Amino acid sequence: MSELIIWTYDWVPEGPRGFVRDLRLRWACEEAGLTYSVRTVPFDGRETNHLSRQPFGQVPFLNDGEVEIFESGAGLLHLARKNEKLMPRDPAGEAETIQWMIAALNSIEMVTVPWWFLDMSGEKDNRLAGWAGKRLDQLEKVLNEREWLAADRFTAADLLMADVLRLPKVRSSGDRPATDSYVTRVTDRPSFKKARADQIAHFAAADESRSAAG
Amino acid sequence: MSELIIWTYDWVPEGPRGFVRDLRLRWACEEAGLTYSVRTVPFDGRETNHLSRQPFGQVPFLNDGEVEIFESGAGLLHLARKNEKLMPRDPAGEAETIQWMIAALNSIEMVTVPWWFLDMSGEKDNRLAGWAGKRLDQLEKVLNEREWLAADRFTAADLLMADVLRLPKVRSSGDRPATDSYVTRVTDRPSFKKARADQIAHFAAADESRSAAG
Repeated sequence: MSELIIWTYDWVPEGPRGFVRDLRLRWACEEAGLTYSVRTVPFDGRETNHLSRQPFGQVPFLNDGEVEIFESGAGLLHLARKNEKLMPRDPAGEAETIQWMIAALNSIEMVTVPWWFLDMSGEKDNRLAGWAGKRLDQLEKVLNEREWLAADRFTAADLLMADVLRLPKVRSSGDRPATDSYVTRVTDRPSFKKARADQIAHFAAADESRSAAG
Repeated sequence: MSELIIWTYDWVPEGPRGFVRDLRLRWACEEAGLTYSVRTVPFDGRETNHLSRQPFGQVPFLNDGEVEIFESGAGLLHLARKNEKLMPRDPAGEAETIQWMIAALNSIEMVTVPWWFLDMSGEKDNRLAGWAGKRLDQLEKVLNEREWLAADRFTAADLLMADVLRLPKVRSSGDRPATDSYVTRVTDRPSFKKARADQIAHFAAADESRSAAG
């Protein structure tokens, strides 16, 4: 079996620790019991230092033998295809898992991340609030009727959707009890907790070398 | 072989004709030579009339035998897996195609659609303009070096990225000659032209029955 390598930054400031998207791939590997190692590209100069491997200067990207793949959603689809714990093998279960993974990326995150971005930019009258609230209300109806998004069990769709929904801006908006207990249920999984702790430790360990260098 | 059914609205106003996302699935079927039929759900009452099949009230969704799948990106991944014309079969070519499909949905469209939405909402000082411009500039660098995004030939990644980029708001912004000729190259394909003409004719045909009913 080829070695899985998850690439992330060598360091990030405290704010984004626990939220950098290599976490999605770490978490998936933990759920699936896949062995992986973590390597880094420099955070400093990130907008130009690895454009040949990630054209938007972002992380993560993933190596799996000869395959190199960027976009956390694409890396997650790749891992889900490797392991049944992340995605069922029957066509209907696989289609349902993929549809909810894409919904997380393109129907929910496509609204919630720009909404959060406007807030961060100091926007007072956030015109994306109504659209975001509507999408989250629609999702609340779905989560009110089921425990998991696809195939009646945990899949990579829950991993991705819960990662999108756990953003503090999203979680603290509105009163959506089914969504709230869904996020709690999914992020209570030991694999999430390990992936998150590992990421935070990875970035914290770099504080010392940076302050020594500084 | 099971019958492919693409579901869309029975009618939309003139503005979005040629841009409703069932076009992505029509186009993919045309490229791959897959037989399909088109069925409809009512545009009126769309926010509640088909929530059991599409929880955000949107179109398209796709039937393929026992598989029912919503999200145009997920439907497109499903079709790409069926046919080599849309996605290579070798692991590296497949990974590259999927990564660029996800990049279209989650790195480009995630910024360009909310940017367009703010403009439509009458926002004067569009705070997403800088972010959108930066992403499009990064993509311009990529398209300056290659004709197709993945596997050195047309794939579903080009179909999806060109569909994201052909939005007038995106196309008319900035001076990005490589992106512009890329969109022209991809949308000059006969399969795109047929899919677009078919969609426009489908919605236009409903004008008469609506005006008769009205």
